[in-house]
Amino acid sequence: MARGRRPAAEVRSEVLDAAGELLLEGGMGGFTFESVSAASGASRTTLHKWWPSKGALALEAYFHAVEQQLAFPDTGDIAADLTTQLRAFARLVGTTRAGQVIGELIGQAQSDPDLSAAFRATYSRPRRDLAIEAVVRAQGRGQVREDVDPEIVVDQLWGACYHRLLIPDLPVTEEFATALVDTLVRGLRPVSTNPCLDTE
Amino acid sequence: MARGRRPAAEVRSEVLDAAGELLLEGGMGGFTFESVSAASGASRTTLHKWWPSKGALALEAYFHAVEQQLAFPDTGDIAADLTTQLRAFARLVGTTRAGQVIGELIGQAQSDPDLSAAFRATYSRPRRDLAIEAVVRAQGRGQVREDVDPEIVVDQLWGACYHRLLIPDLPVTEEFATALVDTLVRGLRPVSTNPCLDTE
Repeated sequence: MARGRRPAAEVRSEVLDAAGELLLEGGMGGFTFESVSAASGASRTTLHKWWPSKGALALEAYFHAVEQQLAFPDTGDIAADLTTQLRAFARLVGTTRAGQVIGELIGQAQSDPDLSAAFRATYSRPRRDLAIEAVVRAQGRGQVREDVDPEIVVDQLWGACYHRLLIPDLPVTEEFATALVDTLVRGLRPVSTNPCLDTE
Repeated sequence: MARGRRPAAEVRSEVLDAAGELLLEGGMGGFTFESVSAASGASRTTLHKWWPSKGALALEAYFHAVEQQLAFPDTGDIAADLTTQLRAFARLVGTTRAGQVIGELIGQAQSDPDLSAAFRATYSRPRRDLAIEAVVRAQGRGQVREDVDPEIVVDQLWGACYHRLLIPDLPVTEEFATALVDTLVRGLRPVSTNPCLDTE
């Protein structure tokens, strides 16, 4: 393969590019060490050296492929920033194979503790932390109540999307993403038109 | 087996009792047509006649086992009723094998369209509908804004629990359930201490 002199990081990045494309085009069905080897030019020995399982490789390739599309904006307006990010996520999982891929990865993780641990360490915990930083910044600006637990905001926005993704009674759409943020920001309780008359 | 004269509904209910116990004690690992046949006394032929797959039998047995624990109260106070129901659900999935069982069923459903369809028809859609009826009743009483989509409330409460169940970065606890309802009912926005001075 005459790759002896190329830096490992470069080969690794190329493998992830090729694997990510395979995943988003074909889902987990045809995703194997063999197909990634064929698509990337890296040997199967190399792949096995870097990734202990097909799931671990798929997970990192998925993360690599979607990372840019899931960037977290910081405009100073938390409702707008949450909406932008959540709509991008809804678009990604609702209109590409990404939704199916991440559903299958989470599905396999239910009976594969190693994959579950890798999923959390590589993907879900770092993604949670980005959202939490945004909510904490908004608390500092007085846009979010101080006594709100930012972890709960993550479960009520992204978690709500994963719920529909994994139990598809209803679709994940950008309108859904917008409505999630709006409902959570405003709350369920009616607001009287003149709060000074509210005797509650 | 000398069961010829017993009504099918009675045998079926006994099978579901036995299968539900097996599931909640041992998870999906040892759950097979054979183990359910041994535990219930019904023949494997009978089981295969009624349930096309192990997943379908597990799903109905799960539903049968947890149905009473997930009853939906109607006291006239939506926040209290949502909290009661969601705490019961959190207790069930957080402290028994039920969480693992439903996680594995949802996990398998990601690559098994028949199981996914059965899960939605038998379990998730009917459960959604019970919650939605409660929210609609609360809208009629003026406790929930008219422009809130009740489907979204389901995703932001139960969906948030499923999120932690399936991606266990954090545990599903009764405190979490209470905080979910509180955060959603009140919303994220700070409320000024004297709304009459709020110039927004």
